[in-house]
Amino acid sequence: MFDTLLRNINVATMTEGGAPYGAIMDGAIGVKDGRLAFVGPVTDLPAGASAVEEISGNGIWAFPGFVDCHTHIVYGGNRAREFEERLNGVSYEEIARRGGGILSTVKGTRAASAEELTASAVKRLKRLAADGVTTVEIKSGYGLTLEDEVKMLRAARAAAKEVGLRLRTTFLGAHALPPEYRNDKDGYIAHVCDVMIPAIAKEGLADAVDAFCEGIAFSPEQTARVFDAAKKHGIRVKLHADQLSDLSGGAMAARYQALSADHLEYASATSVRAMADSGTVAVLLPGAFYVLQESKRPPVEMMRKAGVKMALATDANPGSSPVLSLQLMLHMGCTLFGMTPEEALRGITLNGARALGLEAELGSLEVGKQADILLFDISEPAELAYYVGGVPPEKIIRAS
Amino acid sequence: MFDTLLRNINVATMTEGGAPYGAIMDGAIGVKDGRLAFVGPVTDLPAGASAVEEISGNGIWAFPGFVDCHTHIVYGGNRAREFEERLNGVSYEEIARRGGGILSTVKGTRAASAEELTASAVKRLKRLAADGVTTVEIKSGYGLTLEDEVKMLRAARAAAKEVGLRLRTTFLGAHALPPEYRNDKDGYIAHVCDVMIPAIAKEGLADAVDAFCEGIAFSPEQTARVFDAAKKHGIRVKLHADQLSDLSGGAMAARYQALSADHLEYASATSVRAMADSGTVAVLLPGAFYVLQESKRPPVEMMRKAGVKMALATDANPGSSPVLSLQLMLHMGCTLFGMTPEEALRGITLNGARALGLEAELGSLEVGKQADILLFDISEPAELAYYVGGVPPEKIIRAS
Ligand SMILES: [Zn+2]
Ligand SMILES: [Zn+2]
Repeated sequence: MFDTLLRNINVATMTEGGAPYGAIMDGAIGVKDGRLAFVGPVTDLPAGASAVEEISGNGIWAFPGFVDCHTHIVYGGNRAREFEERLNGVSYEEIARRGGGILSTVKGTRAASAEELTASAVKRLKRLAADGVTTVEIKSGYGLTLEDEVKMLRAARAAAKEVGLRLRTTFLGAHALPPEYRNDKDGYIAHVCDVMIPAIAKEGLADAVDAFCEGIAFSPEQTARVFDAAKKHGIRVKLHADQLSDLSGGAMAARYQALSADHLEYASATSVRAMADSGTVAVLLPGAFYVLQESKRPPVEMMRKAGVKMALATDANPGSSPVLSLQLMLHMGCTLFGMTPEEALRGITLNGARALGLEAELGSLEVGKQADILLFDISEPAELAYYVGGVPPEKIIRAS
Repeated sequence: MFDTLLRNINVATMTEGGAPYGAIMDGAIGVKDGRLAFVGPVTDLPAGASAVEEISGNGIWAFPGFVDCHTHIVYGGNRAREFEERLNGVSYEEIARRGGGILSTVKGTRAASAEELTASAVKRLKRLAADGVTTVEIKSGYGLTLEDEVKMLRAARAAAKEVGLRLRTTFLGAHALPPEYRNDKDGYIAHVCDVMIPAIAKEGLADAVDAFCEGIAFSPEQTARVFDAAKKHGIRVKLHADQLSDLSGGAMAARYQALSADHLEYASATSVRAMADSGTVAVLLPGAFYVLQESKRPPVEMMRKAGVKMALATDANPGSSPVLSLQLMLHMGCTLFGMTPEEALRGITLNGARALGLEAELGSLEVGKQADILLFDISEPAELAYYVGGVPPEKIIRAS
């Protein structure tokens, strides 16, 4: 006796190594206690299988719930005005002089109460959820004081809970240099390592620690100090790596057994090989690439050949990626980065889960995993990548 | 006594020449018999104004219903497979050999019944409508026989009616060369002019006549014959112009007092001046530009200076623009083409209406116009362009 039994559906299990998309035509899915208890051809269902709730698709497609494994969706303030100013010809320098850019988001985030941060994140998370996201990662990184980073991480929890999303939080204290530490990056990194990470670890507020390793942010040496501190507290790491230049961020992430290295437009062949060896997921973020109108694409072909697992995420953030549709990243991953629709879809399911260390629980429709299931009225899986912006789910079934 | 009275809103009237976005802060809108009976500051409302239905926003923003003035949203078949094949490395030539490309859509459209065409268009139109579109233009052009073109135009009517959208239809017989006329473009154009246009005019099935003037489609001379035939029957024209090369399409459209010339990536200074003089709207289509990864942008700066009215549309079609979000075109119009958010928003409101000859009835919130109103929970109008994909409307009020 299942709790829920879906029949008359095709199933894109997204498991690897078999049929494209791990597809099972004319399949069935049985759910029991929030977990997948049966996934297979309907002909393999035990005779007399029944359920409290039976759902009959009409040959439509089931997918695992989508995983958005890289977002900065909790923040204060509004950068729409700045977007408009730039398009009206105001220079980046002038906008910075007026207090724009990331520091305006830091200011807005510090000024916001936990309740305000939660409320604005809820609005945005609802849009992700409507698009089929059932698991989301949210980073801190706009507070840049212990108190404000903690406020962000708590707001992330409250917001995800309100929307009914599964959540992973990432501490990104090493995101930008706060004004208090102007001209003292090392001093701020020491504060991150010696004060912030221990406190956040103690409260169990972060599932991972991330850093922004780039000329305009922190150096590889500073990043290593952050990673060492995370390691000391038993927290896995992630890295904003090689987005605007090659600092061997991918290789450094691999050396620290990072869950993922993210962006990677400028990643070298050495970094790609190292990531393949360490199993570090490449999280590709075509939204930021598109918004910033970058020209150098991440080495997708090289990653594919090396066997690097590729994920896709929104990078939802107020500056470089005001994107609230993970499905839009499917088309952009294909059109801008040359991924195949199957790679793109694996990037927001199984590899999205991998980038969060959740692949044993999520990301594919396999017996024993969490029963996060999406139903789409499409005639083949590639349609989700083909429509720019994807297709809204007909139904979303959540494990809990 | 209004039928509906909205208070406690800011109103982006989208009228020109005054405040940005024609904005009225702390405004009110009164609706009577499906038309706007009051639009102004709440303080100008007549004392004791009342209504059958009163709606109080909470300082949120009202916009005119959006106008998608260029779509090919009625079609048969499915090109997702072809999209996937290309990304898996199958060449364009091989896809054409397998019967792919526009001719596969012609085949699918001819094979579909009117009911099937309607049903698939309804699904897609519902997505446009959910995004805030209240008026849509739909072109024929995948039938390429009189019977199949008529079938498409009738399906467009049935589908728009079912979804509750205001509709303009455009006859686009001169879209592509049907297989029956291989190597005889002039013969097909004669058929379009002598048989198809008269029959469609007689049945009143099209509000405009369009053609695709391009090296891969029809020449300026052939286009002129189509326009002459349309003129003879009193039907206004539109043109797919200067998308892939400069054939002076913009100037030709202007010469025929076309409602619009569309695409225009390669439009010359001469064409731009001619369009400014004739009042021909430039309909920009960043979705196709993005999907095809084109590099030459339409001359927006030149159009702005010349005073050409610019509209934005989805170009919703199964090949070069599988786009079903008009709001996504706002961000793309800004980021890819350099429009300002205000220009982009005027492009899907007042100038979208102009491109259909409907500016006296639609496209701005002014007394006497149709009461198609959208409410958005945003703090400033530019947010619709700033979020990649825009913001879903809180409420859609339709005149009828
Ligand atoms: Zn990021
Ligand atoms: Zn078109």
